Order: sequence, then C-alpha cells, then structure tokens
Amino acid sequence: MAHVTAGVEYALHCLLWLIDKADTPLSSRDLADLQGLSPTFLAKIFAKLEKAGIVRATEGVRGGYALAKAPGDISVLAVVDAVEGRKPLFDCQEIRGRCAVFGASPPGWALAGTCSIHAVMLRAEKAMRDSLAAQSLADIATAVYRKAPSEFAGELQEWIDRRVGGRGRRSGAASTAS
Amino acid sequence: MAHVTAGVEYALHCLLWLIDKADTPLSSRDLADLQGLSPTFLAKIFAKLEKAGIVRATEGVRGGYALAKAPGDISVLAVVDAVEGRKPLFDCQEIRGRCAVFGASPPGWALAGTCSIHAVMLRAEKAMRDSLAAQSLADIATAVYRKAPSEFAGELQEWIDRRVGGRGRRSGAASTAS
Repeated sequence: MAHVTAGVEYALHCLLWLIDKADTPLSSRDLADLQGLSPTFLAKIFAKLEKAGIVRATEGVRGGYALAKAPGDISVLAVVDAVEGRKPLFDCQEIRGRCAVFGASPPGWALAGTCSIHAVMLRAEKAMRDSLAAQSLADIATAVYRKAPSEFAGELQEWIDRRVGGRGRRSGAASTAS
Repeated sequence: MAHVTAGVEYALHCLLWLIDKADTPLSSRDLADLQGLSPTFLAKIFAKLEKAGIVRATEGVRGGYALAKAPGDISVLAVVDAVEGRKPLFDCQEIRGRCAVFGASPPGWALAGTCSIHAVMLRAEKAMRDSLAAQSLADIATAVYRKAPSEFAGELQEWIDRRVGGRGRRSGAASTAS
C-alpha cells in the first residue's frame, strides 16, 4: 500500500466540490454520489476531516458539510494528516545498539541522539511534508478549473442544487451531515 | 508498514561496516552476525544491493561483499530503490473521471494530463527523493564516526579480522559471498 492512500485522494476530490458552496452544504452521501465513491468509506473520511477542523457539519434537512476555512488555508498536509494520522515515513528499529563489537552492552555514544540513518529519513520526510504544506486546496482547484471549460462550474452547481432541493422534498430523509 | 522499511535500515547499517574494507570482504552471514540481524533476510537484501551495483561479490574462502563504489557515490536513494523497488508515495486511483456531473462518459479535459491531486503528490515525492539523493553513505559514516571514540574503528577491524581469519581456518566452510 502506498504511503498516501486512496482516502486522501477521495478527501481532496470531495473537498474541491465544497469550495464556494457554503450555502449548499453536502452530506457525505451526496459527495459519494457526486464523486462515485463508497458512502460508508467517505462518511468515515469526513468524520476525520471534521475532527481536524477542515470541514464543519450543519444539521437539519439541508444540513451537510461545508469547508471550515478558506481553500487557501487548507494545506494538502493538513488533509493527509487528518485522514492518515501522523504516519512516519520510516519506523527506525534502533538496530544501531546491536553491533557485535559492543557485546551485550552498547556504549552510551552508540545510542546517543538520533540514529544517523533515522536522521537521514527524517530530513527526507521533512522535505516531503514541507512540499505538502506548501500546496493548498486552492492550488488544486486552480489547476482543475484551468483545465475545465467555463460551463463546468455552472453544471456542478446545477447538480448540487438538484440534489439539495431533492433532499428538501424528501422531508428530511437525509437530515444530518453524515 | 512505513514507506521506507526495515530492509533499508539493515542495508545502510551493514553498508557502513563495508566502508574501507575492500581487503576483507564480508559475507552476508558475517554482516548479519556483526549487526545482530537475520542471515536469511540479509542475504536477500544483499542480493538486491549487488544487482543494483552498490556492492560486488567475490568468491572463494575469503570471499564476500565489498562496496562497488566510493561511499560518497552511494546515495541513500540508490539504496532505498535497490531494496524497496521503485515504490510510489501515492498510487492515484484516477477517480477524477467518475464525477456524476459527467454522466457515463467523462469529457476529454477531465482526464487530460496528470490528475491535479496526483501532481501534488508527485511534487512531494520528488522533494523526498531529492533529499534522499542528496545524502550519501559517506555522510552517514561521517555522522556515526563523529559520535564514535577513536578506538572504535580499530575494534571493528579486529572483529572483522578475527571473523575473516576464522573463516579461512574453517577451510572454506563459508566459501561464497552469500
């Protein structure tokens, strides 16, 4: 399994559709249908995004999820950490103390500070995380809408309006954010 | 499991002990005993390092592995790729074409070029790989020997000499690099 899993891909795709949609919050089921994903899996992902303060949930017939921050203030790193937890790139086994030259008791210097191999991996992890922190949901949206024809935004809003309107007519059949 | 696994840690620790040891090649069993690791697992790792041109094997009673390049020319990235294979940080599921707005047939623009979310992950992966490429086995050795007292290098050489000498006395019982 890749380090950054499909859950992050699903989260980012769905968060894109919530940009500028504060007036029409979408439930995780709406988002699953909009993006062709498993509603159960997406409900778990959105619970994590809400806990991390990336989205906020509103209750009621027209309740759902909305972005809790401006898209430029939602870094890709925040989404990765919210969905994956704080997963290290490298899990050091601290084998440095096991060198046979030391016998049964490794000297203090051999275990002092961070293992030099672990330090190399921590630098690489920092480079990766810095890159993810420097890229925001707004950056992804800019890239997507640069490819999309001008009518796409309107078509998306129509889909959402139909969905949210339809939900109202079903008298609260999907009355919570989940 | 972390993205960079224990196999890389084992490889780097053992490669450290091969620096400046071209005259006394060590078998993967010697290295496993020196570093307190599974000989079977380490044999598989060293077969990969040999295939990648990082170590070379010599046959014979005193055969074993030696570095195939100067430690400064062995990047951490080369070791990671040799041991792990070329493992992507993120495995894009290409869900961008599944947006319900498109119906059954996504338009060309929606699938054009690299997915914008995948592109974000590729930039982060590049940052990580650039960091690993910029750090070499020689850099790790410098960090380790900065901590080690001056007598450590001699103690290590003594262990190796005893081991290689003992191997000779056993009349080729461990006569190949593996």
